[in-house]
Amino acid sequence: MHPKLITSPSNPIIKDIKSLDQRKRRKETGLFLVEGLRSVIEGMELGASLKYIAYHTDSKEKEDIKRCVSYCNNCGGLALEVNDLVLEKISRKDNPQSVIGVFEQKFHKLSEINKNDTNRSYIVLEQVRDPGNLGTIIRTIDAVGADGVILIDQCCDPYSVECIRATMGSTFSVPIFTATLDEFKSWAKDWTGDIIGTTLQSSIDFREVTPKKPLLLMMGNEQAGLSEDLRGIATTCIRLPMNGRADSLNLSVATGICLYALLEPWK
Amino acid sequence: MHPKLITSPSNPIIKDIKSLDQRKRRKETGLFLVEGLRSVIEGMELGASLKYIAYHTDSKEKEDIKRCVSYCNNCGGLALEVNDLVLEKISRKDNPQSVIGVFEQKFHKLSEINKNDTNRSYIVLEQVRDPGNLGTIIRTIDAVGADGVILIDQCCDPYSVECIRATMGSTFSVPIFTATLDEFKSWAKDWTGDIIGTTLQSSIDFREVTPKKPLLLMMGNEQAGLSEDLRGIATTCIRLPMNGRADSLNLSVATGICLYALLEPWK
Repeated sequence: MHPKLITSPSNPIIKDIKSLDQRKRRKETGLFLVEGLRSVIEGMELGASLKYIAYHTDSKEKEDIKRCVSYCNNCGGLALEVNDLVLEKISRKDNPQSVIGVFEQKFHKLSEINKNDTNRSYIVLEQVRDPGNLGTIIRTIDAVGADGVILIDQCCDPYSVECIRATMGSTFSVPIFTATLDEFKSWAKDWTGDIIGTTLQSSIDFREVTPKKPLLLMMGNEQAGLSEDLRGIATTCIRLPMNGRADSLNLSVATGICLYALLEPWK
Repeated sequence: MHPKLITSPSNPIIKDIKSLDQRKRRKETGLFLVEGLRSVIEGMELGASLKYIAYHTDSKEKEDIKRCVSYCNNCGGLALEVNDLVLEKISRKDNPQSVIGVFEQKFHKLSEINKNDTNRSYIVLEQVRDPGNLGTIIRTIDAVGADGVILIDQCCDPYSVECIRATMGSTFSVPIFTATLDEFKSWAKDWTGDIIGTTLQSSIDFREVTPKKPLLLMMGNEQAGLSEDLRGIATTCIRLPMNGRADSLNLSVATGICLYALLEPWK
């Protein structure tokens, strides 16, 4: 199918794409918005389903764009050739991108995880609130080559524009699992490796622990930390020692420090 | 001086305070805005100069508020008793705080650093762009008990509302130094400890290095990484190994991982 030329920001398709900045609309459609050519290519290379690609008319002859358009057609999606006005409408205000992709969301169930694979590591987040933190953690999980993130109970939306920005394209390579607290607790009962919790109160320094894999690393909510429920199922609780006045770290920083310590040494 | 009661969001003092969300106004006045009682108390305990404190009428009898008001008076500042409307005007929209403080900014010069104190560690940031990253790094510096942040060339404003939020009060305990690239290079010439740079290209794993203190840890810009100029003065360049698809980490995460690795073991 040939790309469709759209020059009006009030075109209904553009309005639909724009509406994906609302959680409600993302939930109804199962779609999400990705800004920037690099991230769109990442989605294509990892086989994500591309429903729309919008790009500036000026870049229609670029090889990368042609590849994306052809991929979008194969997905049954629609390619949109647009102008500055349209891009400004659907993209970030401060630094509008010249390529926007709309992909299908993908959520996984805990039952898909092979508990017998001792190479696996998953990061469990309980009621994470800040989309920047969640996106940054997904990016770190990708960088260290861990196997997915498990979102417990009400977390912020991993497909919000802010979260996707923070992932820098890693959203496509890190499987996202969702579960209620009860589902997770019952599923984790016969976990064969370590289940490590992080708490400010623990007396065990994170550098003293060499976890048995497969690993579950559990991080609590930004304000409240890890719930008693999850602390209860941990095989070990660790803390990050602090030496100054601040008595806590940003959640995504703490997660990064734990991941680099607990997953080493890797090849 | 008695607190001044203000009920109109268009009061000129309130407009002045509100205007501190603009970099230009922060530069002209040398002031910045701090949201939340906890952070304001942190500033008070660390002796920062408090020019205004605005708090909700309902909380005027609270001991903490009385202490802040008295401290503000001692600083020659003005206490403002306000209502919801006023707080909404000068505070974040999503979650307005019931206490707002306006403090004096404090920038330090490299010449204030005692180069002979072998216990010191400073984090050098080159053209950091994202205020959330800068604030989060300042929070981590505070947590590990390092001695300050050195901002090279054009960085984002460490006193922007977004940066201050991310510091979670740590802005008051982490000295901020500023320098041009040339000033920094010439100042660092007779540095007696290690000057460690982080680059994606280095062959040295960060876990292999035990730095000689005093330490300078240099982190590059979010997009471009560390400049050739700064790589040139490093005694060692290190990299954070990556095992997945992502080929970089968020700057504040990378800084946190390096700090926990390079400053250990601490007491």
